[in-house]
Amino acid sequence: MLPIPFLLLLLSSILSPSSAADFCVADLSLPTSPAGFSCKKESTVTISDFVFSGLGVAGNTNNKFKAAVTPAFSPQLPGLNGLGISAARLDIAIGGVVPLHLHPAASEVLVVIQGSIIAGFISSSNSVYYKTLHKGDAIVFPQGLLHFQVQSGGLPAVAFGSFSSPNPGLQIVSLALFANSLPSPLVEKVTFLDDAEVKKLKKVFGGTD
Amino acid sequence: MLPIPFLLLLLSSILSPSSAADFCVADLSLPTSPAGFSCKKESTVTISDFVFSGLGVAGNTNNKFKAAVTPAFSPQLPGLNGLGISAARLDIAIGGVVPLHLHPAASEVLVVIQGSIIAGFISSSNSVYYKTLHKGDAIVFPQGLLHFQVQSGGLPAVAFGSFSSPNPGLQIVSLALFANSLPSPLVEKVTFLDDAEVKKLKKVFGGTD
Amino acid sequence: MLPIPFLLLLLSSILSPSSAADFCVADLSLPTSPAGFSCKKESTVTISDFVFSGLGVAGNTNNKFKAAVTPAFSPQLPGLNGLGISAARLDIAIGGVVPLHLHPAASEVLVVIQGSIIAGFISSSNSVYYKTLHKGDAIVFPQGLLHFQVQSGGLPAVAFGSFSSPNPGLQIVSLALFANSLPSPLVEKVTFLDDAEVKKLKKVFGGTD
Amino acid sequence: MLPIPFLLLLLSSILSPSSAADFCVADLSLPTSPAGFSCKKESTVTISDFVFSGLGVAGNTNNKFKAAVTPAFSPQLPGLNGLGISAARLDIAIGGVVPLHLHPAASEVLVVIQGSIIAGFISSSNSVYYKTLHKGDAIVFPQGLLHFQVQSGGLPAVAFGSFSSPNPGLQIVSLALFANSLPSPLVEKVTFLDDAEVKKLKKVFGGTD
Amino acid sequence: MLPIPFLLLLLSSILSPSSAADFCVADLSLPTSPAGFSCKKESTVTISDFVFSGLGVAGNTNNKFKAAVTPAFSPQLPGLNGLGISAARLDIAIGGVVPLHLHPAASEVLVVIQGSIIAGFISSSNSVYYKTLHKGDAIVFPQGLLHFQVQSGGLPAVAFGSFSSPNPGLQIVSLALFANSLPSPLVEKVTFLDDAEVKKLKKVFGGTD
Amino acid sequence: MLPIPFLLLLLSSILSPSSAADFCVADLSLPTSPAGFSCKKESTVTISDFVFSGLGVAGNTNNKFKAAVTPAFSPQLPGLNGLGISAARLDIAIGGVVPLHLHPAASEVLVVIQGSIIAGFISSSNSVYYKTLHKGDAIVFPQGLLHFQVQSGGLPAVAFGSFSSPNPGLQIVSLALFANSLPSPLVEKVTFLDDAEVKKLKKVFGGTD
Repeated sequence: MLPIPFLLLLLSSILSPSSAADFCVADLSLPTSPAGFSCKKESTVTISDFVFSGLGVAGNTNNKFKAAVTPAFSPQLPGLNGLGISAARLDIAIGGVVPLHLHPAASEVLVVIQGSIIAGFISSSNSVYYKTLHKGDAIVFPQGLLHFQVQSGGLPAVAFGSFSSPNPGLQIVSLALFANSLPSPLVEKVTFLDDAEVKKLKKVFGGTD
Repeated sequence: MLPIPFLLLLLSSILSPSSAADFCVADLSLPTSPAGFSCKKESTVTISDFVFSGLGVAGNTNNKFKAAVTPAFSPQLPGLNGLGISAARLDIAIGGVVPLHLHPAASEVLVVIQGSIIAGFISSSNSVYYKTLHKGDAIVFPQGLLHFQVQSGGLPAVAFGSFSSPNPGLQIVSLALFANSLPSPLVEKVTFLDDAEVKKLKKVFGGTD
Repeated sequence: MLPIPFLLLLLSSILSPSSAADFCVADLSLPTSPAGFSCKKESTVTISDFVFSGLGVAGNTNNKFKAAVTPAFSPQLPGLNGLGISAARLDIAIGGVVPLHLHPAASEVLVVIQGSIIAGFISSSNSVYYKTLHKGDAIVFPQGLLHFQVQSGGLPAVAFGSFSSPNPGLQIVSLALFANSLPSPLVEKVTFLDDAEVKKLKKVFGGTD
Repeated sequence: MLPIPFLLLLLSSILSPSSAADFCVADLSLPTSPAGFSCKKESTVTISDFVFSGLGVAGNTNNKFKAAVTPAFSPQLPGLNGLGISAARLDIAIGGVVPLHLHPAASEVLVVIQGSIIAGFISSSNSVYYKTLHKGDAIVFPQGLLHFQVQSGGLPAVAFGSFSSPNPGLQIVSLALFANSLPSPLVEKVTFLDDAEVKKLKKVFGGTD
Repeated sequence: MLPIPFLLLLLSSILSPSSAADFCVADLSLPTSPAGFSCKKESTVTISDFVFSGLGVAGNTNNKFKAAVTPAFSPQLPGLNGLGISAARLDIAIGGVVPLHLHPAASEVLVVIQGSIIAGFISSSNSVYYKTLHKGDAIVFPQGLLHFQVQSGGLPAVAFGSFSSPNPGLQIVSLALFANSLPSPLVEKVTFLDDAEVKKLKKVFGGTD
Repeated sequence: MLPIPFLLLLLSSILSPSSAADFCVADLSLPTSPAGFSCKKESTVTISDFVFSGLGVAGNTNNKFKAAVTPAFSPQLPGLNGLGISAARLDIAIGGVVPLHLHPAASEVLVVIQGSIIAGFISSSNSVYYKTLHKGDAIVFPQGLLHFQVQSGGLPAVAFGSFSSPNPGLQIVSLALFANSLPSPLVEKVTFLDDAEVKKLKKVFGGTD
């Protein structure tokens, strides 16, 4: 009979010739593809590639939105690469908001851990779906649709979001319009906002006229 | 030797037991699934299920946007169902615009057929990509990102768009915000727009305060 | 100019002829397909289809495992249907365990909310990846691989899991082997366990010899 | 502590609320979708839905091609539905051929079990890849590309094919051109074949002029 | 409060750590993967990567087919990479034809812009679907099925095709059979064509006997 | 008219600018991605990349399991890369077994070529599906579920398996538990096995306490 070590060597070499079947831990130094980041060699993968400790600390809400998103996406948690899932911590201080935004390539489930949040989304047919959520409530935001979260009540809100992509991205409408070099006349043309409003918000968010 | 008809009967019955492998023409009367509409029986499918004649006529641009989108999505062209592709005709009168919008589940390629269009999109990192397109130019709008088209120059614009989904949907930001019952205070909170602007645009687009 | 209501009617009828592009809320009374449950008519969809309030309450850990999984999968949260994401709450009492298990069609991210958990998985090449997680730590379990969670320390553990499928399923090895009618000789043959052990565990988990 | 039966009932009802996560056995009487056939209720599923006994018998090669394909696709083996895999037995008598054909939605792996086969495919750039295969040889035919199998040597050939779709379909070029009502002038125009050849082959394969 | 620039820096670094979520512009100099080309660094991406100006000019129809296909696939329009969509311009001179062909990995929608085209496809069960299309008509060619376009009437035809892949490929049956080194006896065996016809067409298309 | 060679050059350069559309033969020396291995340059691809001759020889069953799996996965058959299909030969000597195992990312179809096999799987709801298979019988093992094969009757068994992944991986429960460094107390905690049994099997399979 074959000695055990050789048997195992044989089995593992024959039956798992590549980590591709199991996982593909992101190597951020290699080229990316439409499927995500390239994979680290399996021999260099450790449990640390699958664990992220950044979600236990409140994000810094000292900003315009009084809100912070702490992502556990593949750049932070490389073991997620290629697996179609990721997570994030959401902190919203009293009076804070995660403004109207979307995730271009992901659906989201948000679970409220502390406080209350008015959360909702709008459909392609302009129907509105929103509700005030309390601790333990979960809400679905379907892929690519505009949605928002507003802190409610007397407590700062904490929630955990999950996404159907290891790197879902986030596009905030106010920043897309007012935090870059898109010319004001073009912004006004495509939004029907008046010139004063656009210029005011470009000042707020750092855009150029 | 088997007689030909029996041979063919045999082959087609053995080798193509279902239309599922080839196509799934939408039967709008049956339930839908996450994969699209249910399939018509192959025996009832004709060439008409794969042809749509509505793209030869200009859409009615007599509306707020001076623009019209004529879709050839699976409801109009049932042969598209399940095939990951669809098309639409875009007409923009002089001074018209397709306002800031997104397709929740599709990327788009737009080809200009007549006139000129200023077209662009904004990325998750708020970078702006836009250009004035002329006849024969094609532009890509990546999945789920906010984008726009503005007529330019002295001619009405005509373009054909293609989408990586048989039923891509379309969400126009101005309608999502101002053409429904989303309360004005909530709109203001999630957009940083001021109350007067929101109420003005709700009047324009038919939303309720 | 067209009156607003007609314009909106026009736009919504032309541009969103089906909920398929946006979401597909599960109608549990209709047939299922490989893509999930059939869709409710969009006209009957409400915010309630996208919200689930069951994750705020601890699951009943008064069982063999001293653990409970409270799922928010598409049957509990029908708005998830077709969206490639779901969530669950995990409660593990002191001394409790979620035994060796897998999700046949989903990867998982687990975030610890309270207490400590020894969590890990084994790869196809029999490498072991495990660690003691504390509040705020997140871990990835790649799709289809055997993994486990064991309560650690002096506090009951609470965690939230997310899955890359709206209905990921869960297969617990001990129940697959010992909680059904799989004959003991067959169990022994495919596991190398001895007869006494198999019969003992079949008694524990309710299987028949 | 909960009695075992209740525990299991609890677990199975909570943790496997639908067969969707595990499998979707085809119910041929229900509507099909782009994702395949609808699913049988899990309570009616048996091992018979996952087993097919038709591949042990040689197919009838008494036809024009001296060849037979015995499929184990989802209509014959309903447990395959939605799983992205299927199989077929190929018998080629001496002098027989599986003519130039393609599978519109599947790649194939063919393993020779008996005899020899000249098998190959042509790429989009018109490169030819072919070889004489013997017992135990496996060949790959990439998705959607034209390929063929020709019996070689003194023994009838037997092979097993696997496909990356539960219902891959099969399109034989000679039958597509000559076994239906496609008018001869159109056939000639799109193939550059001369009229006599087309009419001769339409007679052979039962097409109408 | 944080200064705006730092806020934006923070947001863009935290929330868009990679272009992977938004787009993956092809870098043709890096390795390709089954998912397409590798991605250019987002910092080097410009609007030019998303715009192609080659579709405004008629292709050169001075060839055997009196037809030309001008592709806007990911090699010509690198912004398409990974997005599941592409486009092409089709010019067919009077008397011209796009012979029987298929796209191995894509469905197609074709819109006629000028003139008339007889277009159609054949299903796996050898059913024929074809029609004469005029300006503005759109037709669907389901993935992987043999199809054709023949100019009709007194005008050269122009059409735009869209494909459900950024790099769909094109396999023309006549070139696959007669424009390479596939031996004539093998061609005859797998097509049932006679020797004279095969040799004649190999001369026409440049194949070797 | 263009000379043929230039026409073909033109067509192949225009219409097949990359092998990505047709196939992606694995280059094991380049980085892997979640979609599989990187592609060899099409100019270096030969028929050898698509043919594997290792399935004609019985695997070495002189091991603990009296069984051998000979894979034709993308590392052995690089033409499979990216195609969603692979194959393997299974040899089980008299008294042999392929113990309880799963494929994390693939469904399987197994066809018995010689002898008899007791084969089955267990579902997420702990239902058991198994049967004794004879020559020519095919069975489906749905993705990610635990399954097994046991030789039966007086003949060694031979079977061919197909998988819905080019690199499906294989996780054997007994090796996952007893052939590595997972501490015995942890193994016992997550399996309910007693200490003696765990230590005995760790000795058998080479694990450390």
